[in-house]
Amino acid sequence: MTSEHEDETPEAMDEKDAYARAGVNIAAGNQAVARYREITSAWRHPLQLGTIGGFSGLFQLPGDEGRALVGSTDGVGTKILIAAELQRYDTVGEDLVNHCVNDILVVNAKPLFFLDYLAVGKLDPAVAGEVVGGIQLACRAHEMALLGGETAEMPGIYAPEHFDLAGTIVGIVDIGDVPNHDRVAPGDAIIALPAIGLHTNGFSLARALIPPSEWSAPFMGTTFADALLTTHPSYYAAVREIERVADVKAMAHITGGGLLENVPRTLPPGCKAIFEQRRWTIPAIERELVSRGRLSHEESYRTLNMGIGYTLIVPLADAARAVSAVSGARVVGWIEQRAEGDPAVVVHPARDA
Amino acid sequence: MTSEHEDETPEAMDEKDAYARAGVNIAAGNQAVARYREITSAWRHPLQLGTIGGFSGLFQLPGDEGRALVGSTDGVGTKILIAAELQRYDTVGEDLVNHCVNDILVVNAKPLFFLDYLAVGKLDPAVAGEVVGGIQLACRAHEMALLGGETAEMPGIYAPEHFDLAGTIVGIVDIGDVPNHDRVAPGDAIIALPAIGLHTNGFSLARALIPPSEWSAPFMGTTFADALLTTHPSYYAAVREIERVADVKAMAHITGGGLLENVPRTLPPGCKAIFEQRRWTIPAIERELVSRGRLSHEESYRTLNMGIGYTLIVPLADAARAVSAVSGARVVGWIEQRAEGDPAVVVHPARDA
Repeated sequence: MTSEHEDETPEAMDEKDAYARAGVNIAAGNQAVARYREITSAWRHPLQLGTIGGFSGLFQLPGDEGRALVGSTDGVGTKILIAAELQRYDTVGEDLVNHCVNDILVVNAKPLFFLDYLAVGKLDPAVAGEVVGGIQLACRAHEMALLGGETAEMPGIYAPEHFDLAGTIVGIVDIGDVPNHDRVAPGDAIIALPAIGLHTNGFSLARALIPPSEWSAPFMGTTFADALLTTHPSYYAAVREIERVADVKAMAHITGGGLLENVPRTLPPGCKAIFEQRRWTIPAIERELVSRGRLSHEESYRTLNMGIGYTLIVPLADAARAVSAVSGARVVGWIEQRAEGDPAVVVHPARDA
Repeated sequence: MTSEHEDETPEAMDEKDAYARAGVNIAAGNQAVARYREITSAWRHPLQLGTIGGFSGLFQLPGDEGRALVGSTDGVGTKILIAAELQRYDTVGEDLVNHCVNDILVVNAKPLFFLDYLAVGKLDPAVAGEVVGGIQLACRAHEMALLGGETAEMPGIYAPEHFDLAGTIVGIVDIGDVPNHDRVAPGDAIIALPAIGLHTNGFSLARALIPPSEWSAPFMGTTFADALLTTHPSYYAAVREIERVADVKAMAHITGGGLLENVPRTLPPGCKAIFEQRRWTIPAIERELVSRGRLSHEESYRTLNMGIGYTLIVPLADAARAVSAVSGARVVGWIEQRAEGDPAVVVHPARDA
């Protein structure tokens, strides 16, 4: 579970949910976010722009009123414990970079540079090289500089075979190109780009439900390990394609908190998002977790991405063009008027779910 | 021990030094840095500027040839283990921010914004609030935005009471204002700004030499705990004062690697730096570590800052004006011609040392 300073006020939720059972306390995360908001609201830099959806922070470029720098920091979470156990160090860097690229993509920022933080219990230069090699690969794929980073060897904090990985992305955007979610209106369509697995969320839960002894076991034509470690994709190219043919009013990166917490960040007051689960496919590994953990519908959509990695809200008239621009894109729902007391997001279950 | 990607080639060194005895492997760090250099040299973004000294990375602002963004990521290292043990969470944020400010100050960058990464075993919102409160305080002191951050609760990686803290700073500089160390010449003076303790380096060693049972014991009018946790100062205001009255040719932030590894980054080929230890004071806590660990002269100056937090190289003619501009600033050495085989840095011991 991760809490970003920029989070919007989260919906109230039950403390004893799936994550709590896996040792992660979402209520504590929300309290921390509330405390951060209190601390940072005491003083704001005059060039700091209002957060839009909270996936990243915007800072007006000094001496250039038309452009803003966009920054976001993220980690890979406990996915690295599985990677470490399986000694697969080459993909977590891509997970991290792609996650960060998507976070600033929601405000249409173009990535400029990236810095990483790698902390280890015992430094193995070959392992560190594999991790940073993956980061560099994903940076290059986005024509983004790997500008620097820090590798810290900290015996006493990390077990010898453990490590942690976080990174910071900085991008740039013409302020006029930042989506204005106030334009979202009832009748708009919601386009989804597919998730191909857990991406970088839900791993404390996954580790609680699928023990290491099963990781090399076959699962749906692959192994649990492969299904769990599927790389977090970048939606950069797909979003750019859709933007060529459709008027994109708002976007959300579906990370921790799932559809239920991420989509509301992109809605104006008075709008709610309706999803129809029969319109897309849920990855097998997520169906497995829902089944093993006996997750409720609500828990599932708050803990996992459930097959949707990224959402775009477009006028209904643009929806067909948008989905035909990108392989895998689908219309998964629409916007309706939200009455007092309505939830911001409703997911209608498919009949077989 | 921390390794930055941007590091210059480090001097060869003995693996069995003070740090190795504390469980930190400097040779592995250097191998990792060499590997990173190999990886990142395969492709460079055209707007990425050559590293100058390696304390931070420079990226030319798109569409503005005269300015560069400057980024740096750093952690607090194992100082946080002492802070966690003593439950003092309010100062590590200042340590982190000031460290980062100093790292980009060596290229004369003005801080714009900061993002933090806080990883915990068990999230206590009050503790997280204290940490982020310290970060915000130090950001505000530099008129820098705390643009965002990430708090990750990761049971299984961190012990419940443990945490890790890292951060990324982004600043901006007119490219013409970046010091050009090729101007450094024999006869120049070295000005030092004083270190007031360990700052954020040497803590794995300190923890090995001063056990927790002694932390509350009196030490030189204070306690070991207070002496160890002295906050890493920012040199921003002092450097700006000196720059008003002196031609600053090169600067170094004295962090991990001490004078012996940080000052060479600011020297052109053919120049060496001579320090005279009688010209400044070594903090009592560092004298204590040198004595307890029976550190050699070489080990001391490679592991600890030994009382110098920041160095500036100025023409001899400007030295008197420079030191009178800032309380505590001192002339501590000079630049000499370096012959083949000479070390890049020589520290002449004081008679009583």
